[in-house]
Amino acid sequence: MTAPRFDTILITGAAGRLGTELRRGLAPLARRLRLADMAEIQDIQPNEEALTFDLSDEAAVHAAIEGVDVIVHFGGAPLERPWEDILNSNIRGSYHIYEGARKHGVTRVIYASSVHAIGYHKLQDHIDANARQRPDSFYGLSKCFVENLGQLYWDKFGIESVALRIFSSFPQPADRRMLWSWLSFDDCVRLVIAALTAPSVGCTISFGLSDNTVKPVDNRLAAHLGFHPEDNTEGYRAAVEASTAPPDPHDPTVQCLGGWFVKLGHPDDEASK
Amino acid sequence: MTAPRFDTILITGAAGRLGTELRRGLAPLARRLRLADMAEIQDIQPNEEALTFDLSDEAAVHAAIEGVDVIVHFGGAPLERPWEDILNSNIRGSYHIYEGARKHGVTRVIYASSVHAIGYHKLQDHIDANARQRPDSFYGLSKCFVENLGQLYWDKFGIESVALRIFSSFPQPADRRMLWSWLSFDDCVRLVIAALTAPSVGCTISFGLSDNTVKPVDNRLAAHLGFHPEDNTEGYRAAVEASTAPPDPHDPTVQCLGGWFVKLGHPDDEASK
Amino acid sequence: MTAPRFDTILITGAAGRLGTELRRGLAPLARRLRLADMAEIQDIQPNEEALTFDLSDEAAVHAAIEGVDVIVHFGGAPLERPWEDILNSNIRGSYHIYEGARKHGVTRVIYASSVHAIGYHKLQDHIDANARQRPDSFYGLSKCFVENLGQLYWDKFGIESVALRIFSSFPQPADRRMLWSWLSFDDCVRLVIAALTAPSVGCTISFGLSDNTVKPVDNRLAAHLGFHPEDNTEGYRAAVEASTAPPDPHDPTVQCLGGWFVKLGHPDDEASK
Amino acid sequence: MTAPRFDTILITGAAGRLGTELRRGLAPLARRLRLADMAEIQDIQPNEEALTFDLSDEAAVHAAIEGVDVIVHFGGAPLERPWEDILNSNIRGSYHIYEGARKHGVTRVIYASSVHAIGYHKLQDHIDANARQRPDSFYGLSKCFVENLGQLYWDKFGIESVALRIFSSFPQPADRRMLWSWLSFDDCVRLVIAALTAPSVGCTISFGLSDNTVKPVDNRLAAHLGFHPEDNTEGYRAAVEASTAPPDPHDPTVQCLGGWFVKLGHPDDEASK
Amino acid sequence: MTAPRFDTILITGAAGRLGTELRRGLAPLARRLRLADMAEIQDIQPNEEALTFDLSDEAAVHAAIEGVDVIVHFGGAPLERPWEDILNSNIRGSYHIYEGARKHGVTRVIYASSVHAIGYHKLQDHIDANARQRPDSFYGLSKCFVENLGQLYWDKFGIESVALRIFSSFPQPADRRMLWSWLSFDDCVRLVIAALTAPSVGCTISFGLSDNTVKPVDNRLAAHLGFHPEDNTEGYRAAVEASTAPPDPHDPTVQCLGGWFVKLGHPDDEASK
Amino acid sequence: MTAPRFDTILITGAAGRLGTELRRGLAPLARRLRLADMAEIQDIQPNEEALTFDLSDEAAVHAAIEGVDVIVHFGGAPLERPWEDILNSNIRGSYHIYEGARKHGVTRVIYASSVHAIGYHKLQDHIDANARQRPDSFYGLSKCFVENLGQLYWDKFGIESVALRIFSSFPQPADRRMLWSWLSFDDCVRLVIAALTAPSVGCTISFGLSDNTVKPVDNRLAAHLGFHPEDNTEGYRAAVEASTAPPDPHDPTVQCLGGWFVKLGHPDDEASK
Repeated sequence: MTAPRFDTILITGAAGRLGTELRRGLAPLARRLRLADMAEIQDIQPNEEALTFDLSDEAAVHAAIEGVDVIVHFGGAPLERPWEDILNSNIRGSYHIYEGARKHGVTRVIYASSVHAIGYHKLQDHIDANARQRPDSFYGLSKCFVENLGQLYWDKFGIESVALRIFSSFPQPADRRMLWSWLSFDDCVRLVIAALTAPSVGCTISFGLSDNTVKPVDNRLAAHLGFHPEDNTEGYRAAVEASTAPPDPHDPTVQCLGGWFVKLGHPDDEASK
Repeated sequence: MTAPRFDTILITGAAGRLGTELRRGLAPLARRLRLADMAEIQDIQPNEEALTFDLSDEAAVHAAIEGVDVIVHFGGAPLERPWEDILNSNIRGSYHIYEGARKHGVTRVIYASSVHAIGYHKLQDHIDANARQRPDSFYGLSKCFVENLGQLYWDKFGIESVALRIFSSFPQPADRRMLWSWLSFDDCVRLVIAALTAPSVGCTISFGLSDNTVKPVDNRLAAHLGFHPEDNTEGYRAAVEASTAPPDPHDPTVQCLGGWFVKLGHPDDEASK
Repeated sequence: MTAPRFDTILITGAAGRLGTELRRGLAPLARRLRLADMAEIQDIQPNEEALTFDLSDEAAVHAAIEGVDVIVHFGGAPLERPWEDILNSNIRGSYHIYEGARKHGVTRVIYASSVHAIGYHKLQDHIDANARQRPDSFYGLSKCFVENLGQLYWDKFGIESVALRIFSSFPQPADRRMLWSWLSFDDCVRLVIAALTAPSVGCTISFGLSDNTVKPVDNRLAAHLGFHPEDNTEGYRAAVEASTAPPDPHDPTVQCLGGWFVKLGHPDDEASK
Repeated sequence: MTAPRFDTILITGAAGRLGTELRRGLAPLARRLRLADMAEIQDIQPNEEALTFDLSDEAAVHAAIEGVDVIVHFGGAPLERPWEDILNSNIRGSYHIYEGARKHGVTRVIYASSVHAIGYHKLQDHIDANARQRPDSFYGLSKCFVENLGQLYWDKFGIESVALRIFSSFPQPADRRMLWSWLSFDDCVRLVIAALTAPSVGCTISFGLSDNTVKPVDNRLAAHLGFHPEDNTEGYRAAVEASTAPPDPHDPTVQCLGGWFVKLGHPDDEASK
Repeated sequence: MTAPRFDTILITGAAGRLGTELRRGLAPLARRLRLADMAEIQDIQPNEEALTFDLSDEAAVHAAIEGVDVIVHFGGAPLERPWEDILNSNIRGSYHIYEGARKHGVTRVIYASSVHAIGYHKLQDHIDANARQRPDSFYGLSKCFVENLGQLYWDKFGIESVALRIFSSFPQPADRRMLWSWLSFDDCVRLVIAALTAPSVGCTISFGLSDNTVKPVDNRLAAHLGFHPEDNTEGYRAAVEASTAPPDPHDPTVQCLGGWFVKLGHPDDEASK
Repeated sequence: MTAPRFDTILITGAAGRLGTELRRGLAPLARRLRLADMAEIQDIQPNEEALTFDLSDEAAVHAAIEGVDVIVHFGGAPLERPWEDILNSNIRGSYHIYEGARKHGVTRVIYASSVHAIGYHKLQDHIDANARQRPDSFYGLSKCFVENLGQLYWDKFGIESVALRIFSSFPQPADRRMLWSWLSFDDCVRLVIAALTAPSVGCTISFGLSDNTVKPVDNRLAAHLGFHPEDNTEGYRAAVEASTAPPDPHDPTVQCLGGWFVKLGHPDDEASK
């Protein structure tokens, strides 16, 4: 029997929706999964070890990275939040991750970026990974920051990164937009595995989408990852269409990749209401 | 049971080769199909109603559009004709269609454009939908006009359009060119359904081709339609090759997308012979 | 002394604003200028001959073309007009010009196209001549038609064309938009001369702009014409800015190349008011 | 006499090298210049008012913005600094600027970005403003962040931005790299004036370079600003070449736009030495 | 039963690894295969005839071409060799092939080019066939030469060519690089058949790769050949990964398409050791 | 007084038309010019030394390179010649130059490539240096070879190259084509000086044209050389046009960059007539 490819993988955000899937999916790749989250992680398995801390805690982040081969960084605020939260968890927190990687000799970071880093682009532009960033929210802005942080750590320090621009990863497509934006949990795991195992990635950006019928972007520039989604939304289409109103083609939330994020106001205004 | 997506679809050119296929294929999408042609339409079904008029008759066109949700505009001269015919049936007639759509609140028009709008481009250029129009005939020139008309009605009046650049839609491939240019009737119906049901199309141009082995153009920019052809010409190849001479690679009709249209003279010269 | 390059140049629209400039500017290039307009032409010079007819009159157009070397086609409706006028003067009329050219062996046509063929593109997209047409009016739509007509006559019949997308050719810039969209009369004449005398043009599209400070488009693809504007609007800036309100950067008429044309409604609606 | 275009312009970083030039150069454009810096500003003129605060002080920033028409944001750390400094002065500080602009109805922000936002690109790639960001330092990373912040505030809140990627703006070129990377003070002022007065900028990125002989990037996509540099380095060439060693063409600091920044280590490592 | 498409196909390099596969694979396409190699060819079949000569022997090459319909030119040095060998077998020898084709009316040449014609490009650039040549060896330089030779013979003499940039065609993938660079023997035969039978090829360049998971280049511009690989390396992955060390992502031989060729020194230096 | 930049420059082809200009123009750049040609060189100056040999003589070439800083390689057949001549003087000869450079530590080679390396491209395509090579002759094919040779020596051995695609460098424009293809002798010298003195060139391709009115190609990708032509053909236009027939726009020699080279037959056929 072959030894697993890695000794220890650190998964941040391991208590989250996708983190839970990754625990299952990445288990065969490593002797040990080190799980990190600010929330308590349930049902620790024999191949797992768990740590609870906040990403803004630099010392805790660095301690968690010690002894790790690669990092799967899915932690941080998973959607729009007040600026200070975004700044601390996503910007400062991700800096701690990359600095920890540099200090502890980690060679590759897989990062959960998001469609919201490019949310104001339109489906009909069929952008590829070379298109300019165009965030639709402060959340998306922090994703842009971390993508560029990864680029800097590759160019300057030789640490590889793959930024996965995940569209909508949920158990099943919940609305009409997700009929094209869905990334199934299994495909999400496949994407992370491809990013972990591709021979050479430098600093790569890949879109994260299942093999849905409607294709909004061009993922050609990530073809060296070898990611091939296997799921699609056709089995859910009839139910979704029956239970939701048809889209208005003049609505920016229908035209833009970011969906309803493009109509969000400033999160601090919202929070103060 | 789900209600059909549309109440009434108007199909122009309904007595034609493709119109007949569309009657069959689009029936499940609408409570009612309104059929229009200048020729009499045969075998009217219970879900159908038929109108006979010429597209150059503005009042008749507008009357036909009243009460319609969407228009599938396959009418007009289907191949090269004298200039006055092209002007009246394709240019003036399609203007009547779009103006009728505007006056009666139709929100989307699916238009049977043609490979002949780009017929002087070569296979080896592998153009996409952003390439300049390059008509190979007055027929093709009228297709260019209507594509631009649709763009104007989207930009100015917010009416969506999909222009389908149909290559060769026949019961089966009849010559060597059709081994790559064929669009099966079933794939043609699939393409129209994709264009009718895609969430947001703005003004989209899509090539209309089956999944043939030789691929002459790049349809990436229409990937938001979700059109996936299922047929191809391999089953016909042996018979076609056995019964036809090999192509001359120096012949413009072999090199250009438009095939023998690129060698047609002026239709009025032909007509006067 | 060298003989002029051409024997006879036909100028259509010769009674118009630009036609008058062309009479002066093109005089040295030809032994004779044949002038055509639907309005009476004033002050006929010894090197000129004048004809009065409507472009929709095919026989008159063909008669005017007999014996001509090249055509400078500036005739037709010069701005938005009801559809039937556009159809007759610009679409049908220009067809008569090209057919006349073909029948009488004219080898090159210089056509006054317009910024309004691409009016919905934005300054910030910095389009070049390969960008898709995107008319902002029925007037602009007819310009697109004639550009494609010229392409067809080149590809099929070998008649060269240069389509000049004139922005704003007036005695002086009259508003803030013209500070970037102005084409001085002298530069307009330079552009037509370049188009007439360039060694090989096939079917070329050139933007028509003076050397203004703000540059909204990229004319690189017409560099084989050898057009080099010499005027600019800086001398008019202070007066224009003093007498007009600052632009609203969120206004489509400020963002789009076509200016206020992008907000025009349907001309027939306007006419019926 | 014409009234100045603006009532009040806020200049941040007004005590700095370029801020001093801007005080002189922008004076004619506004009734009043409001100057801000963390250092004391010298020689306050009658048309000026001065404020001293740190950009990380949100309340002070917002107070400084009240009553301002436009902001020329040249403040923040002007070169590589420890991460916490960059985070506070450039990331957090620029966020305060944009939020202040939003809260106080400022309509346009001119931002001193830097070549170091794209420092790992090579001269020989001749990038334009659509090329991916590729920072060469944490300083450059913060410049990328603010460029994206400006994009977000344009897309979501309608506040216009121009990000000026200034290369080397010094009194005169001091080394061989500056022979191509120099932006004279006068050209810097011209660039800021162009950015302030262009009719519509949305979110524009412009390179900031004088008209030097060697041209490392393509500024075509900012041509709507109307910036035309008038200075160049030829007058300094002989002296610079006589006093400096020839470049090593294999050295990344010679090949890359960012110069010696590409070889900087982590600023915190440097600081701890 | 249908007659084979060709009367006589000449295969050069017929005694080599791929030549042997082509003998088997192309047999159904021609009445007769004429085999050429500098080594003796084994097991001549009834449909075959064999010739032994060196490609640098012009007269022998021309004699071999007489009476041939098409040429499948896989002869010459198959990997890095001293300059004189490359010059004689690959440059001079291929010139003899093309001149023979011209003198004897052969209409199409299929040429075994190589990934080493573009070996210094990186996987992450995802080049297509329009990217500049960038040879990684004198062997690759000779491949560039013959690709350009084919372009010249098409443009000037109307002889069609397909240059197949074969990556790694071996019985099975032998190392980690081959997990993405492998072209199975069956896919190699499919590629040659597609190149021989495509209706019009002009001078086409196609990459030669199986349908492996990791895709390093974009073969869109050869889609008119109709080549569709059917094999991939997944069945070999586990064994290859178990027996080889993981790649170093900073190693040029891992990053570049050409693999270890990019680190080869000058072949004459090697030879003289 | 400043010392010259170089100690010794080797100029091959020094007895030729351009070589003579380079002797004069490059004199200030080096302490010594070493001149090489197969013909005897006249009027040797005190700063010059002369060598007579054939480029196919490897030992003589290497001897000439010993002690040289940079090479300006203008030697070899300057126009179409029989294949064996091209092979020996241009292919084999240039290989000797690059090998000599490698063996003797020369760091940069300036090579006189030619428009004939891309002669089948058309003016109206406005190609840049990234366009595929497309030679119009065996002479042009050899120029392609040496351009690729230079790329290989840069990528593998770190020797810089600038390939100058000289169009028509003559004392004055002699025909209508030269009105756009002319490179004045002074501009040719300026171009070589720019190539010699640019800080970092890697392997650069630059077009060589004066600042003529009609511009057939886009030299943007060589802007890091800092070449700015100062001459143009307008002063010659009247005389050239008076003495030559107007061009036929359907003639490939008018449409293609290579001019009459595109109609040349095989040089060996010509030689045998």
